[in-house]
Amino acid sequence: MTLQDTLEQTARDVERMLDRLLAAGDGPEARVVEAMRYGTLNGGKRIRPFLVVHGAALFNATPTGALRAAAAIEMVHSYSLIHDDLPAMDDDDLRRGRPTCHIRFDEATAILAGDSLLTLAFEVLARPETHSDPGVRAELVVALATASGAEGMVGGQMIDLWAEDHDLDIAAITRLQRMKTGALIRFSCEAGALLGKAPEAARHALMAYAHDLGLAFQIADDLLDVTGDAAAMGKRAQKDADKGKATFVSLLGVERARDQASMLADQAAGHLDMFGDKAEPLRDLARFVVERSN
Amino acid sequence: MTLQDTLEQTARDVERMLDRLLAAGDGPEARVVEAMRYGTLNGGKRIRPFLVVHGAALFNATPTGALRAAAAIEMVHSYSLIHDDLPAMDDDDLRRGRPTCHIRFDEATAILAGDSLLTLAFEVLARPETHSDPGVRAELVVALATASGAEGMVGGQMIDLWAEDHDLDIAAITRLQRMKTGALIRFSCEAGALLGKAPEAARHALMAYAHDLGLAFQIADDLLDVTGDAAAMGKRAQKDADKGKATFVSLLGVERARDQASMLADQAAGHLDMFGDKAEPLRDLARFVVERSN
Repeated sequence: MTLQDTLEQTARDVERMLDRLLAAGDGPEARVVEAMRYGTLNGGKRIRPFLVVHGAALFNATPTGALRAAAAIEMVHSYSLIHDDLPAMDDDDLRRGRPTCHIRFDEATAILAGDSLLTLAFEVLARPETHSDPGVRAELVVALATASGAEGMVGGQMIDLWAEDHDLDIAAITRLQRMKTGALIRFSCEAGALLGKAPEAARHALMAYAHDLGLAFQIADDLLDVTGDAAAMGKRAQKDADKGKATFVSLLGVERARDQASMLADQAAGHLDMFGDKAEPLRDLARFVVERSN
Repeated sequence: MTLQDTLEQTARDVERMLDRLLAAGDGPEARVVEAMRYGTLNGGKRIRPFLVVHGAALFNATPTGALRAAAAIEMVHSYSLIHDDLPAMDDDDLRRGRPTCHIRFDEATAILAGDSLLTLAFEVLARPETHSDPGVRAELVVALATASGAEGMVGGQMIDLWAEDHDLDIAAITRLQRMKTGALIRFSCEAGALLGKAPEAARHALMAYAHDLGLAFQIADDLLDVTGDAAAMGKRAQKDADKGKATFVSLLGVERARDQASMLADQAAGHLDMFGDKAEPLRDLARFVVERSN
């Protein structure tokens, strides 16, 4: 199978899981579930689920547990986008070629849909179906919360807002990225290691991969914001440039940013030597994230 | 000690715990922690923490575990108020006599502060410091998520928004209340039972208490909205009446609503017979919630 096939396969599997976990209810509250489904089942690339599933496979964790953890992470990723798109935050009307959640529904429903996706993510991780060992489930909850709270993703979003009126240097941008997008990417890999009770050395190797991959991913995103076209991306391009925000590209220039991303992708793949051929999907992914066009 | 003394003692204890769990960081992201603290350390009555602490005491659970669970619930309660007060939701400027979070900070920060309080609540429950048995921690996470997600609190908020354009009858109002405020009150009692590994009969008795208490609490709230004065409550009065929303009071009238609340408080206290004198603080609380003036 090519990487493209594997990506599509994993995306289908995690979408089936999300569809099951987000079963529409009845009563007037069904609207919030509809908005949760709208914000989640939207054809994303599902890169984080890919990391969970193919990381967990290195340690022979059960596929169901991996898909549940993958779905939980995708719920957190989706909630962060729904809230990020709100008028008070990035004020975006378009996401993956469709109206954003608050445009399709309304602001109040979008806020609540984000809140309940975040809540459901923790519920999914903590339920016995995810892993037979409750200690693993509790660890997954702690690790996801650390990655997505004020010391991780939300803290990164806070810095990102602050950066609208402040100049960031390359160290500050790197720290912002590590929190805003890197933490959840690292957790995606950590989840696989936790589910498979990976030995410490293996876990460290996977986390080192995640660290470099996350940075490569963000630089590639910044490059797309400058060089990509809105139609292919299904969202507004040049957002950061329009706001005068510093990015890896504005600080390094297009050429050096591209070199840096490529170097980081190679370095990420290199961390996986100990896993041999089994880690091929993860190595391919590192290449893919810096070469993608959306 | 009088109930007032016990309430104040529990409030002080849980505030000390919240203060510790919400340690201010540095870096530009510290602003979100500041907003989390502002929205949480604000002199609430801490009724939910009281339920956790005095429910857990029935089963001799450790005080630290009970205070951590109490702090987690108060974080979820606070996050729901921060998001509820947003312009897109209830659009309130004042809460407990102070500017609401989005007025004191800004909307984006208030959204993020709510998000990270919700996230931190699950982290606190799942950490080993809360209980030595990871199975208990995982159960606490599942129970809090169920109580506060789309089938609980958030679902109730969704119905509440819907109710602005729809007429609710007494059954629909009761269901709305059970989800919007009742679910978290029930979880507060359930947490005590989980922490103390309560026998099934004892747990059921405590949940029956929580069920009646939650309804009594909401009816009392509706009565205060009509008969209370804004100064004592520290927030806008007559909110529901101004919006033409149906409430227990608009459907039953002041007299019958008052009788109903009082009857429910007695009924709640009655469920605790099996615990003898140890349950006195919980019985006193049932009386307090229907007689309070703010």
